[in-house]
Amino acid sequence: VDLTDQALAGDRRALARLITLVERGDSVGREALERIYPRSGRAHVVGVTGPPGAGKSTLVGALVGELRDRGQTVGVIAVDPSSPLSGGAALADRIRMGERHEDDGVFIRSMASRGRHGGLAVGTAGAVHVLDAADFDVVIVETVGVGQGEVDVAAVAHTVVVLQVPGLGDSLQTMKAGLLEVADLVVVNKADLPGADAVARDLRQALGHGGGVPPILLASATTGEGVLAVADAMRSHRRDLDATGAIAERRRRIAAAEVLNLVEGELARRFHRPSATTPETATLLQEVAERRLTPGRAAQQILTRLDG
Amino acid sequence: VDLTDQALAGDRRALARLITLVERGDSVGREALERIYPRSGRAHVVGVTGPPGAGKSTLVGALVGELRDRGQTVGVIAVDPSSPLSGGAALADRIRMGERHEDDGVFIRSMASRGRHGGLAVGTAGAVHVLDAADFDVVIVETVGVGQGEVDVAAVAHTVVVLQVPGLGDSLQTMKAGLLEVADLVVVNKADLPGADAVARDLRQALGHGGGVPPILLASATTGEGVLAVADAMRSHRRDLDATGAIAERRRRIAAAEVLNLVEGELARRFHRPSATTPETATLLQEVAERRLTPGRAAQQILTRLDG
Repeated sequence: VDLTDQALAGDRRALARLITLVERGDSVGREALERIYPRSGRAHVVGVTGPPGAGKSTLVGALVGELRDRGQTVGVIAVDPSSPLSGGAALADRIRMGERHEDDGVFIRSMASRGRHGGLAVGTAGAVHVLDAADFDVVIVETVGVGQGEVDVAAVAHTVVVLQVPGLGDSLQTMKAGLLEVADLVVVNKADLPGADAVARDLRQALGHGGGVPPILLASATTGEGVLAVADAMRSHRRDLDATGAIAERRRRIAAAEVLNLVEGELARRFHRPSATTPETATLLQEVAERRLTPGRAAQQILTRLDG
Repeated sequence: VDLTDQALAGDRRALARLITLVERGDSVGREALERIYPRSGRAHVVGVTGPPGAGKSTLVGALVGELRDRGQTVGVIAVDPSSPLSGGAALADRIRMGERHEDDGVFIRSMASRGRHGGLAVGTAGAVHVLDAADFDVVIVETVGVGQGEVDVAAVAHTVVVLQVPGLGDSLQTMKAGLLEVADLVVVNKADLPGADAVARDLRQALGHGGGVPPILLASATTGEGVLAVADAMRSHRRDLDATGAIAERRRRIAAAEVLNLVEGELARRFHRPSATTPETATLLQEVAERRLTPGRAAQQILTRLDG
């Protein structure tokens, strides 16, 4: 029995090792993914994002508890670009406080690495596939919503939960800029703090009404208030996707983002290392460097080849 | 006489409008670049980066003064992802304080926009080409060195100047991670502050000795101390590139980064909009979404087409 079989059969140590391989992205990891990917596609993938200090880890911990109480198994991938350990470690601690550390129905993985552009690493999507194929009912990807993080989570998740909290000043502006576009569900966390109602009201005003507008929920992950409603809303969002057939477009969007990420990674490798560049591309780049060809025309020629 | 001709002939308003077009990246801007790029390639492009608070704008302002005293014309592009205005505006103010606001030999442009991955926008490279073709002797690109900023500046500059300052705690770690790899020259700014010598010493230890190790200079942009030496070191770096022929590899690296950026931008546009996807790619993505093809194999097929 090999590592992939062991992992997918539920061996937790094998699972952890498999994710490490997939995250590393070398040929062993890529080969494993070739076998894993066709067995994935059943899990509900939920992205949880929001500004630093919004209480993402606490909310995810509370959600894990709620989902476990409902009999669902949960895999968590905590991506934290700023600190290699705090995200996942803090989350694991929080869930352990809930005495779930002996619970085989929960698997938590921290990931520090980010893609070369600051986006989600290719390994994140791979880790989602592993947990999905290993039969976790829900896979939660937690990312800090700074820079492109909020948008990237939409590249792996069926349901995007965006957290807000009172007292972050211009956070609504940030929301408008990018977060709201990808939010399927907005949670005003720390609802026990003053100003929570005002934040929710401002959000409702900014978002307007009608179809396609994400629900706005108030919650307090530390007291547990509203967590049940968040879990319900997540499930309800996924059921709507399934019922309307919109899930197919989500799957296509996720597939597109992952394939694009892989293509871009390989292109970057080739372009930055002259030895990895094909002779045709090397010639093009040389001509651009010498001003005999414009960057725009060189890009067009490369893309034309791609179309052919 | 059209806008491009006017701009390249030195009309400052035309220059400003032309950069706006190029920055916008629409077909008008792209067509202008087709004519501008072959006329570029003469300027010395210098990237100045470092952590927030390192005094980049002040140093750039002081460098502009020094270069002007030497009879060189200088174009500046200040890229500030965090605040749309502060970077360029602050810089312009600083240089105005030096009474250079009537000086046709200086052109300053602020750019807020970043590329979709948080890297330098495609428009930054375009703006460099415009200032280059408009005959500025030196083009300085100032970027905040957070995330990928420090690496991106290497994608447009012949000479990368990395700023450090005393009192930033773990900045040396940050330096080691990415900045030092691309630094051609390290400047410990605010050298009048306590701890500057220690920072320089630590850097020397981290960098080691010998060929390829960037010079480490102490400067105080506010008092002007050491600015002359920084300007000398910049010029000396470029002369070495020219003398050894290493400039050809720099030009190739810059060309590769710009073409890659354009290809990635177009790929992302195609992948994210089903209507912009070719039928072949749409089919591939559909198969991936339905788990009939793995993301890895889809990426391979796309890249194989690119090789063909």
